[in-house]
Amino acid sequence: MPKGGCFLLTYTLSSEDGRPLYEQLCGCLRGDILSGRLPSGTRLPSKRSLSGNLGVSSITVESAYNRLIDEGYVRSEPKRGYFVSDLSGRELHPASAPAVSIRLPESAADSPLNLSGTRPPAARFPFSVWAHLMRETINDKGEALLLPTPCGGVRPLREAIAAHLRSFRGMSVDPDQIIVGAGTEYLYGLLIQLLGSNRVYCLEDPGYPKIAQIYASNGAVCRWAPMDEAGISVAGLEAAGADVVHISPTHHFPTGITMPVSRRYELLSWASAAPGRTIIEDDYDSEFRLTGRPIPSLQSIDTDGCVIYMNTFSKTLASTIRISYMILPPALANRYYEQLSFYTCTVSSFEQYCLARFLSGGWFEKHLNRMRLYYARLRRELLRVIADSPCADRLTVLERDSGLHFLLQIRTDLPDALLLQKLRDRGVGLLPLSVWYRRPQDAPDHTFLISYSSLSPDDLRRALSLLSEIL
Amino acid sequence: MPKGGCFLLTYTLSSEDGRPLYEQLCGCLRGDILSGRLPSGTRLPSKRSLSGNLGVSSITVESAYNRLIDEGYVRSEPKRGYFVSDLSGRELHPASAPAVSIRLPESAADSPLNLSGTRPPAARFPFSVWAHLMRETINDKGEALLLPTPCGGVRPLREAIAAHLRSFRGMSVDPDQIIVGAGTEYLYGLLIQLLGSNRVYCLEDPGYPKIAQIYASNGAVCRWAPMDEAGISVAGLEAAGADVVHISPTHHFPTGITMPVSRRYELLSWASAAPGRTIIEDDYDSEFRLTGRPIPSLQSIDTDGCVIYMNTFSKTLASTIRISYMILPPALANRYYEQLSFYTCTVSSFEQYCLARFLSGGWFEKHLNRMRLYYARLRRELLRVIADSPCADRLTVLERDSGLHFLLQIRTDLPDALLLQKLRDRGVGLLPLSVWYRRPQDAPDHTFLISYSSLSPDDLRRALSLLSEIL
Repeated sequence: MPKGGCFLLTYTLSSEDGRPLYEQLCGCLRGDILSGRLPSGTRLPSKRSLSGNLGVSSITVESAYNRLIDEGYVRSEPKRGYFVSDLSGRELHPASAPAVSIRLPESAADSPLNLSGTRPPAARFPFSVWAHLMRETINDKGEALLLPTPCGGVRPLREAIAAHLRSFRGMSVDPDQIIVGAGTEYLYGLLIQLLGSNRVYCLEDPGYPKIAQIYASNGAVCRWAPMDEAGISVAGLEAAGADVVHISPTHHFPTGITMPVSRRYELLSWASAAPGRTIIEDDYDSEFRLTGRPIPSLQSIDTDGCVIYMNTFSKTLASTIRISYMILPPALANRYYEQLSFYTCTVSSFEQYCLARFLSGGWFEKHLNRMRLYYARLRRELLRVIADSPCADRLTVLERDSGLHFLLQIRTDLPDALLLQKLRDRGVGLLPLSVWYRRPQDAPDHTFLISYSSLSPDDLRRALSLLSEIL
Repeated sequence: MPKGGCFLLTYTLSSEDGRPLYEQLCGCLRGDILSGRLPSGTRLPSKRSLSGNLGVSSITVESAYNRLIDEGYVRSEPKRGYFVSDLSGRELHPASAPAVSIRLPESAADSPLNLSGTRPPAARFPFSVWAHLMRETINDKGEALLLPTPCGGVRPLREAIAAHLRSFRGMSVDPDQIIVGAGTEYLYGLLIQLLGSNRVYCLEDPGYPKIAQIYASNGAVCRWAPMDEAGISVAGLEAAGADVVHISPTHHFPTGITMPVSRRYELLSWASAAPGRTIIEDDYDSEFRLTGRPIPSLQSIDTDGCVIYMNTFSKTLASTIRISYMILPPALANRYYEQLSFYTCTVSSFEQYCLARFLSGGWFEKHLNRMRLYYARLRRELLRVIADSPCADRLTVLERDSGLHFLLQIRTDLPDALLLQKLRDRGVGLLPLSVWYRRPQDAPDHTFLISYSSLSPDDLRRALSLLSEIL
């Protein structure tokens, strides 16, 4: 393009673009100036020639030029015309097609036969009901869907959750104690803001490493207390100097331990023994306990307001529907409304109202019953596959009555690392219990996680026959 | 209920409950034990008499009793029968109907004629399109909706956002730079985790107080730099010792100032002058600029990777649809994927795919154009109402070319507090600019916010005639 010369610019402007023509033209010129296609000092075409070339009025061109002058991209020289300014020598080229080199996180390479995967089963989501309820929600609620919602979530959803907890868990909860949020991970962050990042948060060892990541990422101090056969050890809590303890007493992951009533009372006593001690009760898959004893939640036997109860619909409904909730004891609920009510609820009101209908219309209970039946049958089949496998005498199933996984002990002289390597070579994915321990050497040997939420009996049969060859 | 005596318990068990009968019975008994209706020491009915009374098999009753024994609620005495245990004297009464006294946050009492309300207008959301796209999404995507999504959001949505930014804002963005989250408030929290809570975050004064609340609640230090007519003062940033500056250069709230190109380059120079300095560019209502100049975003002229761009669909679509996004420069995107990719995306995949369709199908652009036309017309009418009002000679409109609000200066000898009180007494809500200042005395006198996103010309006419009476 001849510097200072005269030339024709060709842009495609469209009356269907929605923006006025002069604005479109302005955008094209600005883009070319920023990208360097029109270097500084370039003389722009006259208004008349450009308007003729583009088939627009010269007022359109004039408006565009004037705006670019206002913005500093173009200068006008009397009697000479319009020139691209040099903007005091600044580097104007934007990172056009940005030389971006982004390394995405590695997704765990899935083995063809993954025995420890925790992906929830597809094909079990009630799509047609959900689609129907969503349409109904949009039709019935209409503009009410656009109104600001309470920071804790829309009332019908919180009432439906309270009713569900009453009938399903025997819990007595005021809807105002319930705070709805986009996933438990988000709620953990809120809790740290509510309780303070200067408290000592104590977690179960073994346990989900992600919980520790979230606390640490939010600036809180994490410590760990060991598990015994009844759940987290109260002596361990004392030793750790814990202020807040985060547990999943209904069904601990990965051990599958259900905390008995006696330990629950011990924990409540621990919490009551010093002001500000708090128990976060993560009840994430209580709905899927199949044969275990539905022991009352800590929340329901807490008389001192020390327990925060959390649960999620991501486990029971679909992991991609991000709706979780927490139940705050009254004093903390009041603190929440005083300190954190400036936060807008993170769940779209469309989905909140839809889920409220799903709950109060009885669909959720039906869905849970169907899933429990499905999982119970699957579990029976998987256990039979194990019992019938060629290496059955070397296999012991631990914690059978847990939710969506159990532990498998393999009697072998092979070190675990070698066993897993040999399995991996044959396309079988299996995770040792040590993965969830702070110090892997604390984990029991030869103990592995079988997650059956997305495992078929045929896959397990194939995997076990490969295991037999190795053993 | 006679302690130690014999009596009949009556519960309604139902085969349609979904749970086995023994489990239902167990729940009823446990509930009565916990609530104190069955005090410790109470002898329970014999298996035979209870099974007869309830019309269930005695095996059902036996299973329920055995479970309660396992749980420790009941003990069995040979030849004597079953008794409610006293659980080592512990207080068992749950907070039944919890004596909850929760003080909800006060919602700002809305005046009948609220001139400064910022509620987005209802009745403008494309309900039928959205309902249609949601059904289409559920039908077409099916089980794909249940698959785990990338931590930054589903690919089609991030591609659609990148394409929208390219055509609408002339921005060149790699979809992997985009992180989708449930509202900008949530993303601010993520940013603090990414950048560190030990940095000095600098905000605009005046500005949204909520932004400061969020930073403070996440443990970050906030400072403020004053605005001049070109936006935040770079000297003010230096004086504050800022590491990170959070600004809305396209259209500052509440002043309506659009930062000119020259100040943008000054800011970029400030950011480049020391390692780790970062600009958070909050472009929250760039789509609604009606007559202003679409100056390029800081992100698009940033060559050093200092700018994080943020925007939201909550302003353009519906405040109750919680979908926002941020664009990280490549180095920060990599840090995000390394450090924070354990977080699950907080937006339901149903809404993500639905919004992707809304964007790529051209519905969003149509919606924006309709809204811009609507607001432009409304703005013209409101300005005419002001010009025609009985007190027109005392009124000056400032920053007319801004998005969804403008400032109104009222020439009066009344102190603002008195003026506002008199207006309030007549049912007119109006907010002075000082509300958004760190030190109210720094605000210009007699300057008020008129937010026209949900204001009708008739309301304004009525309010101005009441104002005339006062003046």
